[in-house]
Amino acid sequence: MTAIDNAVRNGVDTATLFATIDAVRGDTDLAKFQFRATNRWLSGTHNQSTIHGFRGAKQEMTHRQPFTFDADHPPVLVGTDNGPTPVEYLLHALAACLTAGIANIAAARGVTLTEVSSTVEGDIDLLGILGLSDEVRNGYQQIKVSFTVRGDDPEELRTIVEQSRRRSAVFDIITNSVPVSIQVSTD
Amino acid sequence: MTAIDNAVRNGVDTATLFATIDAVRGDTDLAKFQFRATNRWLSGTHNQSTIHGFRGAKQEMTHRQPFTFDADHPPVLVGTDNGPTPVEYLLHALAACLTAGIANIAAARGVTLTEVSSTVEGDIDLLGILGLSDEVRNGYQQIKVSFTVRGDDPEELRTIVEQSRRRSAVFDIITNSVPVSIQVSTD
Repeated sequence: MTAIDNAVRNGVDTATLFATIDAVRGDTDLAKFQFRATNRWLSGTHNQSTIHGFRGAKQEMTHRQPFTFDADHPPVLVGTDNGPTPVEYLLHALAACLTAGIANIAAARGVTLTEVSSTVEGDIDLLGILGLSDEVRNGYQQIKVSFTVRGDDPEELRTIVEQSRRRSAVFDIITNSVPVSIQVSTD
Repeated sequence: MTAIDNAVRNGVDTATLFATIDAVRGDTDLAKFQFRATNRWLSGTHNQSTIHGFRGAKQEMTHRQPFTFDADHPPVLVGTDNGPTPVEYLLHALAACLTAGIANIAAARGVTLTEVSSTVEGDIDLLGILGLSDEVRNGYQQIKVSFTVRGDDPEELRTIVEQSRRRSAVFDIITNSVPVSIQVSTD
């Protein structure tokens, strides 16, 4: 490990990052995580999730505080606009995952970033979810992410974004699908 | 349309809901929407999205206010825990979408709900995103949603959840995949 590997760069403690990866390499069970959200319906399309506890590194943990988020539909979709729609939260998740990866990978490669900003656009035809067409899918037909990335090694920036895409959890979930099981209790 | 169809039930204005569906049936271009999120990197794995404008019903619209959300990694993942992880936001999006659908569908069917609550759990093996295995995927291996639903027609509640699943945008995105394109500007 060279001196540059030990630097805090882009706000990333690279020494701790590399030590964490080494620890997981030595005990792969540390890598098994379970994340959770609990949700409560409030009224109409308005509901609220809380995110607090998760399991990982062979122990039960919590975030430093419970985080709560309201979701709703806007008036044009017969809601009361108390928060973004669920599909907008999904775009946020994608942008956030790719951006965190860019910062980590740049730090690991010794590249100092000055800006990472992005716009994510998702095109959706609501004929699906409104039940007006069986040929139109319910979800987004396509998603486009537009990044602006600036840093001290312009040649390397595109390969950093590409590596973040290759290792992004949310990108994988959206582009490769995940099995979802639903259980219902009515007791 | 019967009297019951005109009721506000579960906080859902069913008359407006049915009128909206009728309007879209008459002009299907009204159903074409584009949702957006903009994201800005702050430091390390900490970044923030803003959700405000969207396009739909043949016009540019905004939510009644800009909504902002912080994402980060917890300390165990070398972050500063200024918000949930991106993959937790995705669980929230799934719960919120299914729950909004349950409220709408129950209202449309004349079923009054008294409770909809859920826990969503996503299992993930971080060997993928840490670059320690090419056989382990980056995203969730499976997601489990556990609903408790109560209302005045217990027999109907399970079929309402099933219909919400069949028409959920986020469920479709996660289980059936969406193409994502990424553009990068380094100017």
